[in-house]
Amino acid sequence: MQDSTYSSEILQYIPFYYVIWSDDLLTASEINVVQNAIDADKTLSEKSRAHLLAWLDTNNPPPNSELKKWKQMISNSAAKLVESETYPLTTFSQKVVCHYKDECPFNEQLKHIEIQLGIQPNHYNHLFDVQVDHETTSDFYNSHEIDIILKGKHAKVVGNFRKVLADPIFKWEVHRNKEDFRNVVLNQVKFLAGKGYGAMAYPEAYGGTNDMEGYAYMFENMMFTDGSLSIKFGVQFGLFGGSIQKLGTKKHHDLYLSKTGKAELLGCFAMTETGHGSNVRGIKTTATYNNETDQLVIHTPGKNDNKEYIGNALHSKMASVFAQLIVNGKNEGVHAILVPLRNEKHDLLPGVTVEDNGYKLGLNGVDNGKIWFNQVAVPRENLLNKYGDIKEDGTYHSDIKNPNKRFFTMLGTLVGGRICVARAGLGGAKFALAVAIKHALKRRQFNDSIKIQEDLLMDYPTHQLRLTPLVASAYVYHVTLDKMMEQYCDPSQPDKRKVETQVAGLKSIITWYANDTIQECREACGGKGYLLENRIADLKGDVDIFTTFEGDNTVLLLLAAKGVLSDFKSEFNSAGFSAVLKILGIQINDKLTTINPIYSNKVDKDHLYNPKFHKHAFEYRTRRLTYTLAMRIRDYIKTGVPSYQAFLKVQSHLLALGKAYSNELAYNTYSDFAETIPDTKNRALFQKLGTLHALHTIRQDAEWYLEQGYIGGTKSKAIRQRVERLSSELRPHIGVLVDGFGIPEHCMSAPIAN
Amino acid sequence: MQDSTYSSEILQYIPFYYVIWSDDLLTASEINVVQNAIDADKTLSEKSRAHLLAWLDTNNPPPNSELKKWKQMISNSAAKLVESETYPLTTFSQKVVCHYKDECPFNEQLKHIEIQLGIQPNHYNHLFDVQVDHETTSDFYNSHEIDIILKGKHAKVVGNFRKVLADPIFKWEVHRNKEDFRNVVLNQVKFLAGKGYGAMAYPEAYGGTNDMEGYAYMFENMMFTDGSLSIKFGVQFGLFGGSIQKLGTKKHHDLYLSKTGKAELLGCFAMTETGHGSNVRGIKTTATYNNETDQLVIHTPGKNDNKEYIGNALHSKMASVFAQLIVNGKNEGVHAILVPLRNEKHDLLPGVTVEDNGYKLGLNGVDNGKIWFNQVAVPRENLLNKYGDIKEDGTYHSDIKNPNKRFFTMLGTLVGGRICVARAGLGGAKFALAVAIKHALKRRQFNDSIKIQEDLLMDYPTHQLRLTPLVASAYVYHVTLDKMMEQYCDPSQPDKRKVETQVAGLKSIITWYANDTIQECREACGGKGYLLENRIADLKGDVDIFTTFEGDNTVLLLLAAKGVLSDFKSEFNSAGFSAVLKILGIQINDKLTTINPIYSNKVDKDHLYNPKFHKHAFEYRTRRLTYTLAMRIRDYIKTGVPSYQAFLKVQSHLLALGKAYSNELAYNTYSDFAETIPDTKNRALFQKLGTLHALHTIRQDAEWYLEQGYIGGTKSKAIRQRVERLSSELRPHIGVLVDGFGIPEHCMSAPIAN
Repeated sequence: MQDSTYSSEILQYIPFYYVIWSDDLLTASEINVVQNAIDADKTLSEKSRAHLLAWLDTNNPPPNSELKKWKQMISNSAAKLVESETYPLTTFSQKVVCHYKDECPFNEQLKHIEIQLGIQPNHYNHLFDVQVDHETTSDFYNSHEIDIILKGKHAKVVGNFRKVLADPIFKWEVHRNKEDFRNVVLNQVKFLAGKGYGAMAYPEAYGGTNDMEGYAYMFENMMFTDGSLSIKFGVQFGLFGGSIQKLGTKKHHDLYLSKTGKAELLGCFAMTETGHGSNVRGIKTTATYNNETDQLVIHTPGKNDNKEYIGNALHSKMASVFAQLIVNGKNEGVHAILVPLRNEKHDLLPGVTVEDNGYKLGLNGVDNGKIWFNQVAVPRENLLNKYGDIKEDGTYHSDIKNPNKRFFTMLGTLVGGRICVARAGLGGAKFALAVAIKHALKRRQFNDSIKIQEDLLMDYPTHQLRLTPLVASAYVYHVTLDKMMEQYCDPSQPDKRKVETQVAGLKSIITWYANDTIQECREACGGKGYLLENRIADLKGDVDIFTTFEGDNTVLLLLAAKGVLSDFKSEFNSAGFSAVLKILGIQINDKLTTINPIYSNKVDKDHLYNPKFHKHAFEYRTRRLTYTLAMRIRDYIKTGVPSYQAFLKVQSHLLALGKAYSNELAYNTYSDFAETIPDTKNRALFQKLGTLHALHTIRQDAEWYLEQGYIGGTKSKAIRQRVERLSSELRPHIGVLVDGFGIPEHCMSAPIAN
Repeated sequence: MQDSTYSSEILQYIPFYYVIWSDDLLTASEINVVQNAIDADKTLSEKSRAHLLAWLDTNNPPPNSELKKWKQMISNSAAKLVESETYPLTTFSQKVVCHYKDECPFNEQLKHIEIQLGIQPNHYNHLFDVQVDHETTSDFYNSHEIDIILKGKHAKVVGNFRKVLADPIFKWEVHRNKEDFRNVVLNQVKFLAGKGYGAMAYPEAYGGTNDMEGYAYMFENMMFTDGSLSIKFGVQFGLFGGSIQKLGTKKHHDLYLSKTGKAELLGCFAMTETGHGSNVRGIKTTATYNNETDQLVIHTPGKNDNKEYIGNALHSKMASVFAQLIVNGKNEGVHAILVPLRNEKHDLLPGVTVEDNGYKLGLNGVDNGKIWFNQVAVPRENLLNKYGDIKEDGTYHSDIKNPNKRFFTMLGTLVGGRICVARAGLGGAKFALAVAIKHALKRRQFNDSIKIQEDLLMDYPTHQLRLTPLVASAYVYHVTLDKMMEQYCDPSQPDKRKVETQVAGLKSIITWYANDTIQECREACGGKGYLLENRIADLKGDVDIFTTFEGDNTVLLLLAAKGVLSDFKSEFNSAGFSAVLKILGIQINDKLTTINPIYSNKVDKDHLYNPKFHKHAFEYRTRRLTYTLAMRIRDYIKTGVPSYQAFLKVQSHLLALGKAYSNELAYNTYSDFAETIPDTKNRALFQKLGTLHALHTIRQDAEWYLEQGYIGGTKSKAIRQRVERLSSELRPHIGVLVDGFGIPEHCMSAPIAN
């Protein structure tokens, strides 16, 4: 026991004051926290209280000589910092006092400061020259509980499915030859079909459980095994089977659905054409009804009008072909027709040509191909006739009179696939994050040749900053997609047009997020991330195309923006701009102009962490962009610019709006969900993740917010600092957070993660 | 000939006025251009002049009814817009007048407006309902001339080399099996060596031409063939051969250099270790001098201390091994030693273990492997002894007494490789841009079902915006790297420390740029970009690792930042922070604080396009970040935080500084070069590209500039609009700009680009 120049009362506060002043942590609201604690601290004499309060004056901070003295005293105490203690800084303070004084009780008010300011060991353990008992991760939260929250009502389905993935058939291996790889994946698909997973989203009568939501979870979890599996599975059961289920009628279901679900009938979904990637309405393939033979004749008119990138094209016996339906010389628009491709011996049928798309950047376990049809005749019954039919008398009939509406109704029923693609992208991002973070919790790296023990990668602030916000976003997008699928499947809401447009935008921002995340993880693992064995490389190649297929992201964002502009009232997904314009005329004088930023200089923590601020910021951006966009379009129209051209000229503005709206939607969905988590501890964690995601997202558009005067320079800096702070506060829990994704151990084959 | 309500004098201005008012093009400086032209227009009566000037009042613009009337008149004239005309809008105006009036001379003042405002057909061709004679690209500039400018004094070497790449041995093919692929690449390397290219950078006595600068060009051009070729070539001749050339002495040169240049001796560069990726000084492999046998014993102490990712490891006979040199029990620091790996039969020598690194995301034509040494003895002479030697009496000697300085001198001599890696990344980016843009100049895509002819992809504003600034940056980085290599090779400047630090930063920003560019090109090509045959996919996998090898980008940026902080005066590359701090003490009160933004609200074109503004903005950011960083570090130090920890806490600030400095350096280098281009037309083009790059780069940090108050909201928006305008103005020339990269036709194998 040595002497200290300070009384015990003062001394116990010294480590806190040192952290606060040397680390530049103080903001007005935080000073307030400390002041209140001191006021409430019954152990302090009036004199000590005054003394401590005086040291909180930001206009007259303690001199550096004082800080050095504090540090010296802390170092001399030889107190040990143990990160795993529940209140490490309070306990550390207690130990310092113990060293100098006879009595050193635990102080509740210090604990209060520690909690309120959210000071974590990694904020201060490098400020003291003391021994630190490091631990790679804290057990304050429980990854199993987190996983339960994320799985929600699907816990059982997901749990069972993850167990199935332990079968040796799913063991990850390098596959370089595409034919071999495709066979491996085909066998995996058949294996899952055999266990009933293929038919999961189909009605019970056809071997399913009507569980589209569970199906989406599988999609994500298959990514933990292999990207090609997810996609091949999705093509067979979701696209091919889905087209039969949703565009066909009972006769088709009876004939094909059970066999499809069992993978006894392999099929493909032939929509995209080489000449028309994103413009489905412009496809050239024709299906011409022949009254005499009562057949439909499928034909590819030009060389570039072939079906392109068709998954499962080489393994399939049948295709669901999208073509312009021509009945009695009239084009009734795009319809889907079941067309047999191969016979029992797997020989191509007459008139059908299939060409392998060859090697790709990723997904080489999926057999993509091109398909040409040369006057291929199929029975009239092969028309998937739920929304448009050819009657026995050879006339066309549809309950949906408007061809535009008919087209988008057909397409809309297939929108579930977009949610699944986003889910799969998210699954890839989660896996990459888990690998990168597990690696960073093991790998030590130099920064100072003098130090003996090198730091863990995860302890570098730049490493925290590059990965932690991405983990937070994974949580936000998980919940968002889950809720979207719930709405999409909700039978009480038959009108899905709004959900469909929302999904278009979300698919875009989430698949881009997935790619950025996987890239960040690759770089964060250095050379190890480049080796196939560590799995990130394959994910990178596989997920890349998610931004393009099931709707190119740019095209989808334009679609989402048009939805917002017309407040989802216009003809759904219509490329016709006049409907949008009509509605703009009504809306243009609404309240949007009157929104005033009221928070532009508020920088205190309570405000910056308040979901109201985040929601307001997201909403403000959407509304402001909508208003300025509407004004620009109207101005063009007024001067006589054709509406199509006007929309072309504001294209980048439309993209910004599409993203802004999707960001708003994702955060609101997550934020509402987080509030419903019953237990306080996990709720607080989820809310913290939401805050980090929100501030990180706002920061990405900080330029715009600053331009608008919605936030001032000081606030923008404060937001940046808060993102860094939150990333560092979550450092002790980052291991648990990625474990919370529930990736089964048997899927985590990356050597650097084990 | 029909009547018009306007006189000829007025009428000729109508198409210009319509473009200007309906397209929202007017800024103060642009109004000025029009006013001056009208004042100077001798064909105008005073009345017409007054009439026209009145229509330029932004406070009282022409009413929409007037604009509609204009448009009607233009449409009724049935004048045809021909993009290929030299002054298309002036000529179009002339045709409109011809339709209504008897006389219609060409008006020089209109031509002046057209040039000064930089109005391009793609600004207005969609404003008129007139027939447009489209062309995919303009021949105003000449791609051959551009290529000549880019090649500079290396035109002959580059030209010859490109011809060599036409040999069938370089034909691009899909290679999936790594052993086969590696053999293909090995044969390509030997082929080039046979033609003398391997030894190019070596002295004439060893078969070379001492042409390191030409060598860098080859490196870039090899990327047009295959990434693995570039890297394998670089490992053999640049790293292995370079270590002999630069760290060895005459005895080594005589024994090995010629054979290495001819690829008769294959070797690898064994520096990186599994346990120490980025910390070369911390490597664990030892080379212990044995006085009795006069040998050096190379040894790998622990399982994770093996050499890792060593290129050429499976084909090599010899390795240049970096190890801690221990002489008489004293560690003299890291030195390189030539260690034979295999005998003539290609069997591993005793004590050497090599393991294949297996499949990677890319570069599978390069045989990367791990190497362990178990007490492998080599003669003392195998020490590459230019900077540190063991004398015959068994004592260590070096002319560089300071071990730190010795270490960085050795490493510094190898810095040329970093320029080459950046060059290779740039080559990949150029190739991807060429593919994506050639595709976008052919592919038509829907946007309006009513239109008959679909638009070219390249005509979409979003497509212009996503690709054009990347093309501009390719030009900027090309020139920057060229000049850096020139400085690096300049014998009149023996002290390379500053160049080496600069290269560290440039390698980072340019390889990141390359990856972002290739990704953008992949997405811009949709599904076609995903197919290996179109080459972007391979480039993506190959270039990805460029951000990690030859120095991890993050580590390199920290190094660059420390160089800036210490004004390059401190011990070069030292990890010791005290030297930096010493200099900070001197600098901290300098003029940096007094820099005041004077331009924050200037938005006119002349200002925004002025290189002085760009240079000032870049310099301001570097200086401001340096100052605030220095202040933060000093504050930490003052309160007793150890310097290592202080640097850790400001890591993201250091990264920002490293990037800012590199951006400044790149732009200044390019801008100075552009001024020296003799012919006015091409100089103006290069300057325009520089402007686009500069504004685009400033925009990426707009958030920071806004926070600082360096630019105001209006200016930030104006910069964004200028980036869009410039991208659209360059649209007619974009084909020529990518052809200017000089990629030989025989390398451009992507089907979508042909």
